[in-house]
Amino acid sequence: MADSQNPPSLLVAEEEGGGGKGLPSKKAAKKEALKAEKAMRRQQEEAAAAAAASLSLEADPLAGNYGDTPLADLQSKEVSGRRWTEIQLLVEELKDEEVLIRGRAQTIRAVGKNMAFVVLRRMGFTVQCVVTAAPELVSRQMVKFAAGLSRESIVDVQGIVTVPGVPIKGASQQVEVQVRKIYCISRAAPNLPINIEDAARSEKEIEEAKLAGETLVSVGQDTRLNYRVLDIRTPANQGIFRIQSQVGNMFRQFLLAENFIEIHTPKLIAGSSEGGSAVFKLEYKGQPACLAQSPQLHKQISICGDFGRVFEIGPVFRAEDSYTHRHLCEFAGLDVEMEINEHYFEVMDIVDRLFVSMFDSLNEQCKKELDAIANQYPFKPLKYLRKTLKLTFQEGVQMLKEAGIEVDPLGDLNTESERKLGQLVLEKFDTEFYMLHRYPLAVRPFYTMPCYEDPTYSNSFDVFIRGEEIISGAQRVHVPEFLTARAEACGIDVKTISTYVDSFRYGAPPHGGFGVGLERVVMLFLALNNIRKTSLYPRDPTRLAP
Amino acid sequence: MADSQNPPSLLVAEEEGGGGKGLPSKKAAKKEALKAEKAMRRQQEEAAAAAAASLSLEADPLAGNYGDTPLADLQSKEVSGRRWTEIQLLVEELKDEEVLIRGRAQTIRAVGKNMAFVVLRRMGFTVQCVVTAAPELVSRQMVKFAAGLSRESIVDVQGIVTVPGVPIKGASQQVEVQVRKIYCISRAAPNLPINIEDAARSEKEIEEAKLAGETLVSVGQDTRLNYRVLDIRTPANQGIFRIQSQVGNMFRQFLLAENFIEIHTPKLIAGSSEGGSAVFKLEYKGQPACLAQSPQLHKQISICGDFGRVFEIGPVFRAEDSYTHRHLCEFAGLDVEMEINEHYFEVMDIVDRLFVSMFDSLNEQCKKELDAIANQYPFKPLKYLRKTLKLTFQEGVQMLKEAGIEVDPLGDLNTESERKLGQLVLEKFDTEFYMLHRYPLAVRPFYTMPCYEDPTYSNSFDVFIRGEEIISGAQRVHVPEFLTARAEACGIDVKTISTYVDSFRYGAPPHGGFGVGLERVVMLFLALNNIRKTSLYPRDPTRLAP
Repeated sequence: MADSQNPPSLLVAEEEGGGGKGLPSKKAAKKEALKAEKAMRRQQEEAAAAAAASLSLEADPLAGNYGDTPLADLQSKEVSGRRWTEIQLLVEELKDEEVLIRGRAQTIRAVGKNMAFVVLRRMGFTVQCVVTAAPELVSRQMVKFAAGLSRESIVDVQGIVTVPGVPIKGASQQVEVQVRKIYCISRAAPNLPINIEDAARSEKEIEEAKLAGETLVSVGQDTRLNYRVLDIRTPANQGIFRIQSQVGNMFRQFLLAENFIEIHTPKLIAGSSEGGSAVFKLEYKGQPACLAQSPQLHKQISICGDFGRVFEIGPVFRAEDSYTHRHLCEFAGLDVEMEINEHYFEVMDIVDRLFVSMFDSLNEQCKKELDAIANQYPFKPLKYLRKTLKLTFQEGVQMLKEAGIEVDPLGDLNTESERKLGQLVLEKFDTEFYMLHRYPLAVRPFYTMPCYEDPTYSNSFDVFIRGEEIISGAQRVHVPEFLTARAEACGIDVKTISTYVDSFRYGAPPHGGFGVGLERVVMLFLALNNIRKTSLYPRDPTRLAP
Repeated sequence: MADSQNPPSLLVAEEEGGGGKGLPSKKAAKKEALKAEKAMRRQQEEAAAAAAASLSLEADPLAGNYGDTPLADLQSKEVSGRRWTEIQLLVEELKDEEVLIRGRAQTIRAVGKNMAFVVLRRMGFTVQCVVTAAPELVSRQMVKFAAGLSRESIVDVQGIVTVPGVPIKGASQQVEVQVRKIYCISRAAPNLPINIEDAARSEKEIEEAKLAGETLVSVGQDTRLNYRVLDIRTPANQGIFRIQSQVGNMFRQFLLAENFIEIHTPKLIAGSSEGGSAVFKLEYKGQPACLAQSPQLHKQISICGDFGRVFEIGPVFRAEDSYTHRHLCEFAGLDVEMEINEHYFEVMDIVDRLFVSMFDSLNEQCKKELDAIANQYPFKPLKYLRKTLKLTFQEGVQMLKEAGIEVDPLGDLNTESERKLGQLVLEKFDTEFYMLHRYPLAVRPFYTMPCYEDPTYSNSFDVFIRGEEIISGAQRVHVPEFLTARAEACGIDVKTISTYVDSFRYGAPPHGGFGVGLERVVMLFLALNNIRKTSLYPRDPTRLAP
């Protein structure tokens, strides 16, 4: 901890070397410790008082079996050897066994004074816990305590597993727990800004209720994001971010198996960059700097540095004022760069096999998550071929033309044409995942390799899911003199890219690569309507919190 | 590509949605394409002229068997079906077979006019290629062409595998390739700013040469970093970054198997933060913002959002003016946060098992890389126990005291004391990897949970490799009121951390976590003397390039 890398402060203070500086001097330690102790005691007394008040203070010989756990008992007091059972593991085989479980009180319902039901939730699984007053076992005060829990509080329950004769509707697990002891570990504020039930409701349910004359609460996207800590507890959101984790994992495992290595390149880049408004600028120790809009430069240097095949997963920053359903100011970029022997098809082949195997794995290994998501946001499984369809840009333009849509054959496709082409491809080839290659050179970055036989076109490709672009890739120009010529032809001041061009002067293998937006892949695989649904804490031009 | 997320510019222009905007209008496409074609032709003519000049232009009926490959042939002209063999796969079993290989000309040596040796290198493996003039097979012009290659040029060789009677000293592979065809794919500049041979030399070799009266070139750290594209081609550097990739992979695979999920949290954070000088500040769409010094806030929200166990691998930014061997302004942080049932030992147990299994895997699976690194930077394998040693801070202070070193028992250890303690631990327990826990509360961040029985101490720990800290972790305060009290006791304006505190108001499970610096783990596992050796493109207060 004697580490000057320590951030002095709070939230931003991370673990490695965290702490120390900025805090009171060592001499103040004792004083501070006393203060802390006082604060804790006050805390505990308040909790005890609140608990007592809520229970109308009748003397209860069974009082030790329930209550708010004092903070002191949650401060790593002991390693007791107790075992908590995961809620998802509560099954009929455990009948009559005593279990200890921890979860959130999702719903609480009292039935008279002698019975209460508490549905506990953990990681998207729920179980019904039953508190029934019984002599020498469960007091009415305990029933009252359970009934008085606030929703979303964290609760420890000790009890006996039973199997009711009828199916349980309000919980995922088909057993109940007959409560013997119940303790509140952490009490949630009584008024939640979002009810999980409301946040978990599908549009369909709201519509159907409306037809029946009822009004159900619908939680808007912005409210969700403002209270993300509650919003992400819904089964759909639990599913979405488990899928996201899996996509990243599949991406890496596939590439590692193909002899790629993972690299980490700097996000702090010298210069203010040509990008202008699209770039976040900052001062770096007195020098102008900006945040990387992609690892393009560094992944190419890595190839020229003989790593052969590299990939990176890291944040990408775009300062543009885009207020669409699919743009973010910060997102997770999946980037790949590799030597090629002779053709950019080698890169497209990696994309093909990587994504087909990823889709396969998601469908096979994430069934539960996919179901949870589909419950709230219904979608049809993605249609894709065993061998991914490749069309040239010219073929795409021709298909559009035949469907009565004229596009500039040397221009770019706009979002609408891309969607339309997606539809046409689906009708003709029965796939929602395909690659379009050989784009006009003029619509690609200057470092894109032109086509051999017609430099109006380029050795480049885009990849689409459900009519929306998720990947862009190409063979790069690896010859420094030609790269300079291309930059000049594109009106770029060559002085500003000298580091880049110089990387190719010491022998540069032919190479290519591509970039993917993680949030987009997840959004489009799941046919979600907004990229904010697949970004854990999204950043857009108007959102910088939480 | 009709994507307004497109960065308009160059280097920073990444794949996803790259290109398009900022480039000349579609109408200029043709003109530009023509320019590009012209540039290419000029390029090719120049190359051909250079090649011809260097070969003194005698008519050679075998001229098709060697030369500089024209750019057009490297523009994805065709998928030929040719197979390149990896240099590392060239073994005796291939005797008499014809192979096609691609690599860098590491050394080139002519023997008279009829013979030349070219050692080709690829991914750290090397093979000797022999060009011998022979009627109707190899011309003297071809020998001259080979002898005239510049070092580090990328070369395609077609030839027959032979097995010489004596061991080959100058190459890793114990076969030779009798060259039939040789083409230069990419010519390196004739004068390299760094010779790979020099960059790959060990200190020992330089010392021994000095004793023998010879002077061998030693390449300084700064020169290496200035020409990183060459420096990273050395076998040691190839090994270091493959090890780094493997450390990240082991970290993730272990945690995924333990039911952690991977998250991506924003690096752009609202507010200018308390951190002051340690924080990089920027403007975000008119709002003050800064770069995250750690994912602390967001990983804790994720736990309160019911993900149970999360980790993240991502950049961490520290604007401090640290000019030491182990500080960077940007590094790859490995961050973990998890619910705990009752004790912070649950977190330490993850650290224990994670790192022991990581060290095991590195030693077993990366032998070749470790050897390559040790050749240049000799080191002894890390000593670690099957079950990681845990000492309390107080025990550590006592050990130092017994060794005659007095430290403040409620202060922090400085770098020197940490080193000393590392030595003492090694002597007494025979391990260079251990954990020190129960630090004084005063030297940890305000959100650290105090100890149950003595709030002078905290439920926190640091982890050390070879006497240097690599990990810091703790149980967190999960009770909002107590967190507020702790912040106040530490002199923090509570208003500035309201988002953080509010995350705990809707039910928060007891939890803890830790953070690791990837570059430090690799540096210390390999006993390297500078963290710049384990950061691919390091950022420190004076370095923002390449």
